[in-house]
Amino acid sequence: MSPSKVPAGGARGYIIPIGGGEQKEHNPVILDRFVQLCGGRDARLMVIPTASKLEDTGARYQRLFSDLGAAEVHVLDFDTRRDAYEPGRLAQIADCDGIFLTGGNQLRLSTLIGGTDVARMLRERNAHGAHIAGTSAGASFLSEHMIAFGEDNVTPHAGSVTLAPGLGLTNRVVIDQHFTQRNRLGRLITALAFNPFLIGLGLDEDTAAFIGPDQTVEVEGSGTLTVVDAEHLKFSSMDQAGANDPVSMLGLTMHVLIRGNTFNLHSREASAGTLAVGKS
Amino acid sequence: MSPSKVPAGGARGYIIPIGGGEQKEHNPVILDRFVQLCGGRDARLMVIPTASKLEDTGARYQRLFSDLGAAEVHVLDFDTRRDAYEPGRLAQIADCDGIFLTGGNQLRLSTLIGGTDVARMLRERNAHGAHIAGTSAGASFLSEHMIAFGEDNVTPHAGSVTLAPGLGLTNRVVIDQHFTQRNRLGRLITALAFNPFLIGLGLDEDTAAFIGPDQTVEVEGSGTLTVVDAEHLKFSSMDQAGANDPVSMLGLTMHVLIRGNTFNLHSREASAGTLAVGKS
Repeated sequence: MSPSKVPAGGARGYIIPIGGGEQKEHNPVILDRFVQLCGGRDARLMVIPTASKLEDTGARYQRLFSDLGAAEVHVLDFDTRRDAYEPGRLAQIADCDGIFLTGGNQLRLSTLIGGTDVARMLRERNAHGAHIAGTSAGASFLSEHMIAFGEDNVTPHAGSVTLAPGLGLTNRVVIDQHFTQRNRLGRLITALAFNPFLIGLGLDEDTAAFIGPDQTVEVEGSGTLTVVDAEHLKFSSMDQAGANDPVSMLGLTMHVLIRGNTFNLHSREASAGTLAVGKS
Repeated sequence: MSPSKVPAGGARGYIIPIGGGEQKEHNPVILDRFVQLCGGRDARLMVIPTASKLEDTGARYQRLFSDLGAAEVHVLDFDTRRDAYEPGRLAQIADCDGIFLTGGNQLRLSTLIGGTDVARMLRERNAHGAHIAGTSAGASFLSEHMIAFGEDNVTPHAGSVTLAPGLGLTNRVVIDQHFTQRNRLGRLITALAFNPFLIGLGLDEDTAAFIGPDQTVEVEGSGTLTVVDAEHLKFSSMDQAGANDPVSMLGLTMHVLIRGNTFNLHSREASAGTLAVGKS
């Protein structure tokens, strides 16, 4: 699939992967910014807790977003693929300013929602201006190429990561989460080694990438976003490596971004953004 | 201090940091290559186990190098700084083709040997062609700027790493070891953020960087060498960050090298090296 087309004169909504573990009660800057982006006191939000197996995940985010001032917050879960074709549920999504996908297991999202009317509607809604955020597993699922599962604490090698089709809001990036906390550089680089056209986004916990309609990513939260860009890759040993052989990647560009820094997915330029104020 | 001058017509010996945990009994490719480089059956080697607090560290490497065919292997330890001025010990080093610094704590090496006649002699011997290897703590100690200690599993921040003067065989690199295994990207990037003129070498376990007299680094062993090069750094927030604030670094170049790949410290070019045989 490809991202849905933006109608003439319109603007795509933000795509907002979050690295998991975002602040919820004390200083919830990421969740608050999402609510404000969606309209603040006018925001109509939908929480999709399908990745999670915990009973109260949806209700918890519903309460958090309500406390942050959203006008309406609903929870919509999917237990079967049939649920994801049900007109009543689709109608609820059609009406939202923002959709939030919780953490859990991204394979639950892809196996239950992938290829259904709900997946199509989420892409359409985003193309028509609705903002779609996801945390942890919900973040991984947002892009066309999704890290389905993989290994932590490893040197890059072919067996370290398994990709699967995701929701497809964007096809420029592959997203990993809990990035520094779980030492996932090796598997993110491996994902890029398969096909270097992708840009790797490694999100720390309590850190979000606000990907705007102009393809500019702005970082929010207390950690870093590590961008790995293989555009100028000079050599990779991926084609000659066995599943457990370490893989070389020569000529990567890396940016470690903090709150306020930006990266443009189209020009592939990193910028200090608001941190550069007052700097020459 | 600076690296000792190479005499006219001479060639500097190799500098060989190893990431710790090198194979010893089964397939010890790194230790074997060190022995061969030093002359194989003619090699006279010195093991300096000063970083280690274990009684048998020196004897173990003595046996390993003897088993690999070295002509002579001696062990020389330093318990006090006075030992490091003792003429009898200096004479033993003057005669060696290769010196091997074991793992342990790099601050034991810098506090016991730093600034002594032994340190001067090691730099001189290297300038006159002796090869000097170090594993783990011994690897960190080799360069001018040494990671004295730091934190694992962290996002780059000023408090994550403490630099100290090392042995000073080279002043182009800062070396970290157990790199992937202990998730040390954050602290290596922090070390570069202090002053981006350095090139960061992150060595995995059972992986060595053979730094030749022409400044070409060649990788040996089963893991990866991660080179982080800040030459084209565009922005860093280090000057405005508190000790615990995450630090941004925009515009880093990164290479993940495996056995056979090379990186030239002077031209800052990575190359596939022997892996490129048969490739266009």
